Amino acid sequence: MERVYIKDCTHHIDREVHCAGWVHRIRSLGKVTFLLLRDRTGIIQTVWEEAPELTLESVVRIKGKINKNDKAPGGIELHAASMEVLAPAAADLPIAVNRDTDTLSIDALLDHRMLSLRNPKIRSIFYLQSDILRYFGEYMRSRDFTEIKSSKLIGSGSEGGTGLFEVEYFDRKVYLAQSPQLYKQAMVANGMEQVFEIGAAYRAEKHETPRHLNEYVSLDIEMGFIESDQELMDLEVGILGYIFDQIKEHNNEVLELFGTDLPGSVEMEATPRISHDEAKKILSERLGKRVFELNPEGERELCDWALEHSGVEAVFVHSFPRKKRPFYTYPDGRKTMSFDLLFRGLEITSGGRRIHEYDMLVESITRHGLEPEQLEDYLQVFRYGCPPHGGFAIGLERLTQKILRLANIKEASLFPRDRKRVKP
Amino acid sequence: MERVYIKDCTHHIDREVHCAGWVHRIRSLGKVTFLLLRDRTGIIQTVWEEAPELTLESVVRIKGKINKNDKAPGGIELHAASMEVLAPAAADLPIAVNRDTDTLSIDALLDHRMLSLRNPKIRSIFYLQSDILRYFGEYMRSRDFTEIKSSKLIGSGSEGGTGLFEVEYFDRKVYLAQSPQLYKQAMVANGMEQVFEIGAAYRAEKHETPRHLNEYVSLDIEMGFIESDQELMDLEVGILGYIFDQIKEHNNEVLELFGTDLPGSVEMEATPRISHDEAKKILSERLGKRVFELNPEGERELCDWALEHSGVEAVFVHSFPRKKRPFYTYPDGRKTMSFDLLFRGLEITSGGRRIHEYDMLVESITRHGLEPEQLEDYLQVFRYGCPPHGGFAIGLERLTQKILRLANIKEASLFPRDRKRVKP
Repeated sequence: MERVYIKDCTHHIDREVHCAGWVHRIRSLGKVTFLLLRDRTGIIQTVWEEAPELTLESVVRIKGKINKNDKAPGGIELHAASMEVLAPAAADLPIAVNRDTDTLSIDALLDHRMLSLRNPKIRSIFYLQSDILRYFGEYMRSRDFTEIKSSKLIGSGSEGGTGLFEVEYFDRKVYLAQSPQLYKQAMVANGMEQVFEIGAAYRAEKHETPRHLNEYVSLDIEMGFIESDQELMDLEVGILGYIFDQIKEHNNEVLELFGTDLPGSVEMEATPRISHDEAKKILSERLGKRVFELNPEGERELCDWALEHSGVEAVFVHSFPRKKRPFYTYPDGRKTMSFDLLFRGLEITSGGRRIHEYDMLVESITRHGLEPEQLEDYLQVFRYGCPPHGGFAIGLERLTQKILRLANIKEASLFPRDRKRVKP
Repeated sequence: MERVYIKDCTHHIDREVHCAGWVHRIRSLGKVTFLLLRDRTGIIQTVWEEAPELTLESVVRIKGKINKNDKAPGGIELHAASMEVLAPAAADLPIAVNRDTDTLSIDALLDHRMLSLRNPKIRSIFYLQSDILRYFGEYMRSRDFTEIKSSKLIGSGSEGGTGLFEVEYFDRKVYLAQSPQLYKQAMVANGMEQVFEIGAAYRAEKHETPRHLNEYVSLDIEMGFIESDQELMDLEVGILGYIFDQIKEHNNEVLELFGTDLPGSVEMEATPRISHDEAKKILSERLGKRVFELNPEGERELCDWALEHSGVEAVFVHSFPRKKRPFYTYPDGRKTMSFDLLFRGLEITSGGRRIHEYDMLVESITRHGLEPEQLEDYLQVFRYGCPPHGGFAIGLERLTQKILRLANIKEASLFPRDRKRVKP
């Protein structure tokens, strides 16, 4: 007898089937016992005349007949004939899987990650994340971008060496890459012209906030033959519009579960694009004080402004001053052709046009207090002809967090790493 | 005027266009000069009445009219009217981009990676690799597998701690993951049931062979509710059959460029499945000596046998002895429910059913000379109910290498890492 997934049981009414999954809940009502069985597609009520002796979370295979029952959740139940225990669970569950996990602290959720992920609502975050990866790849390929996989072990930091984790690599030291910056630029220069990468990125920074991870998944994009960073913002609007449309069409259940909604591609087109100076002016007016920098409070306030102004909780801030951006950012007078995208109060993207002229790059490296000699590998890419280009990166966990309006970014990472947490 | 890609120029005969790309070759014939322009889609001959003064590999934009010319490569040429130099290249190219690179040593190719990747034939390896990633993801999703992203920073090794790179993580030591073994098994146990991951894997092993990398991309698969490792072999035949069919349909040019072909899904179905004992017997007969182990010579010989026997250069070897497999492998008497897949003489996959019973796992850990205490995180997954399951991993670079019959696996990695090489 083939296993039937729980979501498909409605098509098997009055038939003998076998389901398999986890014991979600057991409720004895004297003569009859209800055992809720959970698989990856849903939960079904199974009915027992004799109460089975089992621990919650044990993995079982149950045979029986599917009956219609309007009183049962989902309108059907499995009248159980027999059960096979595939794996008994220990009785000392440190956290309950079958209860609302909203009351648990983030530390309790993560300390017991192997159990909290069994909770269907928590697990649904990661089905969505799997689909975000899919939609992202689909869109990039539809725009003829090539997927690359670059090394995460680098001889030196592309941003000048701070915030790097050190790796003992045989008899020398290397570092975990903060981003594929050098490699994605190199692949544009090497003739691929348009590339994307989905890969791990590492930041050895000591912050402990609801918006930082020390290891995250970066969705990186780089494209050649652009003239300004406006083309990059166009591309990002296209990417997010596509991802959001797909989510609204195929993942609406998880949006509902988390009590939220998303703008579609048409709304995303209306995302305002304001300069860093304009942003400070808007914030100064709204907050009633002189604002000199975009801090987290300012980012939230700007998204509120964008919602009122354009109907979308997203805003591009561009034309950052040179000293606020990395050395490779293309200058535009005292400003730069660079931008951040704020979405629902959080920076989810940083990007811009890059310097592609060798001499300008050497000048900029020096101006940022770095030594051209340290960045020899980087410079070599530009020595032999590199087209004008630019790119950006979207943090996968930040995007997931903001789509579902999760309080803490760690909820959007299966096995998050922070300063204190390196397991499970 | 919109840029026209070189491959699309045949649709613009007698029209004014602009093309952009790299200066591939310059040939002066007295009155006329031919400049071959290369972009990511191809190469076009541009014709100049006055020889442009330019270095090879400079990035330029050329305007002119597309003319039919049967003598020109591809049957068309661009009669150039003007040129804009976007980025001049230095004249001291350490290796030629426009020549056959087959004469260069692997070290020359990798020492000058930023230039060797400009060569169209070398670059085509990575367009194929991008598509392999795509086909793999498409197939896994069509089979309802969920994509996961697990941490690459682990507190201890899942295989017992050898061959790990050490990372300075704030005030402690962690390690780079050799595989997502724990995490993919955990996600099956946590209710996702069927997962795949595309991620980096690290091996701190000192070999220097044409088949090893210290950092590679692992295509990992794990699935729940299986009964035997035969189901896993069925799945892998399905995956590779799909990838190969897609490559034959959409990437035939690169197969031709490398002078090779691929079996399709029908041929892959015929992949023989032999036990480790049978494999040794076949080798002993063919090599005329007692064979006790499957070494690289044996792997090549077995693939030759499979080709003669079943018409496909692939063979599953299963039922390895317990002592040859990791502690988590499901035992089957003195053998195990495990397998390797050999393809074109190389092991490209290792996999099998895993132990899902807690007590059996503790026993197996001890039998392998490890301490259950060191594997506490791992064991916890099985303490609370884990279904029978199994999985395997395909090395992306090994698969790419064997599809194109590349001599060295490093040719199949954009920026390979070995004991001596950590740049570019």
